[in-house]
Amino acid sequence: MSVSPVVTLKNDLLLRALAGEAVQRPPVWMMRQAGRYLPDYRKLQDQYDFFTRVQTPDLVAEITVMPVHQVGVDAAILFSDILVMLQAFGVEVQMVPGKGPVIPHTVRTLEDARRFTLPDVEDVLHYVMDGIRATQRALDGAVPLIGFAGAPWTLLCYWVEGKGSKAFDDARAFCFAQPEAAHYLLDLLTEATIRYLNAQVAAGVQAVQLFDSWAGLLAPADFYRFSFPYLKRIAEGVSGVPLILFARGAEHALADLAQTPASALGLDWTASPEQARALTGGKITLQGNFDPAKLLAPVPYIQQEVRRMMDAFGCQRYIANLGHGILPQVPPDHARAFVEAVQSVG
Amino acid sequence: MSVSPVVTLKNDLLLRALAGEAVQRPPVWMMRQAGRYLPDYRKLQDQYDFFTRVQTPDLVAEITVMPVHQVGVDAAILFSDILVMLQAFGVEVQMVPGKGPVIPHTVRTLEDARRFTLPDVEDVLHYVMDGIRATQRALDGAVPLIGFAGAPWTLLCYWVEGKGSKAFDDARAFCFAQPEAAHYLLDLLTEATIRYLNAQVAAGVQAVQLFDSWAGLLAPADFYRFSFPYLKRIAEGVSGVPLILFARGAEHALADLAQTPASALGLDWTASPEQARALTGGKITLQGNFDPAKLLAPVPYIQQEVRRMMDAFGCQRYIANLGHGILPQVPPDHARAFVEAVQSVG
Repeated sequence: MSVSPVVTLKNDLLLRALAGEAVQRPPVWMMRQAGRYLPDYRKLQDQYDFFTRVQTPDLVAEITVMPVHQVGVDAAILFSDILVMLQAFGVEVQMVPGKGPVIPHTVRTLEDARRFTLPDVEDVLHYVMDGIRATQRALDGAVPLIGFAGAPWTLLCYWVEGKGSKAFDDARAFCFAQPEAAHYLLDLLTEATIRYLNAQVAAGVQAVQLFDSWAGLLAPADFYRFSFPYLKRIAEGVSGVPLILFARGAEHALADLAQTPASALGLDWTASPEQARALTGGKITLQGNFDPAKLLAPVPYIQQEVRRMMDAFGCQRYIANLGHGILPQVPPDHARAFVEAVQSVG
Repeated sequence: MSVSPVVTLKNDLLLRALAGEAVQRPPVWMMRQAGRYLPDYRKLQDQYDFFTRVQTPDLVAEITVMPVHQVGVDAAILFSDILVMLQAFGVEVQMVPGKGPVIPHTVRTLEDARRFTLPDVEDVLHYVMDGIRATQRALDGAVPLIGFAGAPWTLLCYWVEGKGSKAFDDARAFCFAQPEAAHYLLDLLTEATIRYLNAQVAAGVQAVQLFDSWAGLLAPADFYRFSFPYLKRIAEGVSGVPLILFARGAEHALADLAQTPASALGLDWTASPEQARALTGGKITLQGNFDPAKLLAPVPYIQQEVRRMMDAFGCQRYIANLGHGILPQVPPDHARAFVEAVQSVG
């Protein structure tokens, strides 16, 4: 395991906001910022299939850096996918254009579950760590690089359901009907994710984000059974860099999430900034939560709504972001307008 | 307009709970209880297409009454669909098996929107009122009959998007980019829905439910712009029977929803019963909110989780229900176990 060289950052706003230090203005980045709304990304999409892009370090670096140069964000987030973790377990994952992920062989029984054991994540996913090193060379200290992973509950959703879904009914039913199998897999995923994120840190990311995209599909009591304990273990198990915890739709748990070692909590666009501040006692950095559909409205509307959002969150202990991934149909000029509206504050 | 005869109900638990009167045990019904999990429903599905079933009063009556006899629920809800309201506006709605609703001609501009005017709802949707009268004859006072309609924002989602969607991004973008067109349609839908629900009341329903299935997709501030004012107007405009307001996912607004003339508020399964009671000051009847996926777990688990739910809500000012529609793959025995678990209390 190589230790990354210490890089002097030209823009360390993200790390300052994560550390709770005073900033002149909040940093801004966008979930899925290295994505389909950028014409240059679509060119690479035409040339290479999804997992070729994910597994080729030079492509990872090129794609990850793209929005830093083209949109002016204050942080890069590694181009990858949460489902590489299932691949590390030996699960076949296909990415079907226009449809999303497809997992032909799903887990449905305790017997299915018990066939899986902890993989050597650093080895199987070495291309991610290579991609991080290539990206850091390309970034050359311009902005911090964020690594990431999917949360155990969210990964289990795909593993059981085999594809995207509105409410992942089968995954929830799996947890209720077969809790032993569910906890067996959640435990494995937790341990593998801790190793994976620590390997990303060793390779040079300066922050990590844990995506629990489907946390909000669980009733509060079930979130505390099937998701929260695993999020907490991961937050406790990752060391060396700040962790951003994005338990999408689980605003009911904000007070408890704020008690974990996470440095920041992500919020989706349906969360109220004022309520989130109140629930977390103003003591933790919050990230979010612009409705991505607002980037389809005219620029003056975007500017007005950014001001409202920032008035609600305040400029300290705050990272401006969308409340979910940027939509493919957003004009790049509107993405830039969002970023510039944040950066013109203060 | 014919006035329905006064019916003496054999089981008036639902109406007592809606009126805030003391009950020996809470009433129970299930959203989509007249649906695909029932083998007899699937037989009719094979014989008649969706809108034939919806538009034929005798089929409406047969389907609506089915779960009363076969599952033992304490209320019937009219078999119909929220999208008949779009049809009343002259919009073509197809129901594609395995895919859901498809609206070939969507609204996207102010010009599109302005082509529409208020329809004569009672006339165009007369088959609904005929279905209500046929159902009341079939029910013969066994349990109350609930009528329903979709909320304006939820109907707009389909009108703009043209199909089901995870987050109705285009519908939200339409509201942000073209608020004038959005409010024009929301206003029309509101007026038409008030007339529609009052016509259902005149035809004999004893309660109505307003479904804002996609309320939770709007940020709180946007819910107050594009949904809440219209829900409130409908709650104020429907008279003669109690109204149940189900603003799914808009728990942030429970305190304000409780201030409308609605008699009860529906909750989806991700809401916390304790928080909902606290937010509404214990002053309004609450309905919900069993996770529908729990009906796929073994019966003893269902019984245990029903007890937990009822402990959390309490037995007064409470209507037991699911937090969303029953899933097609639920064994009918499990649906009965849910209903019986509620009914065995007290």
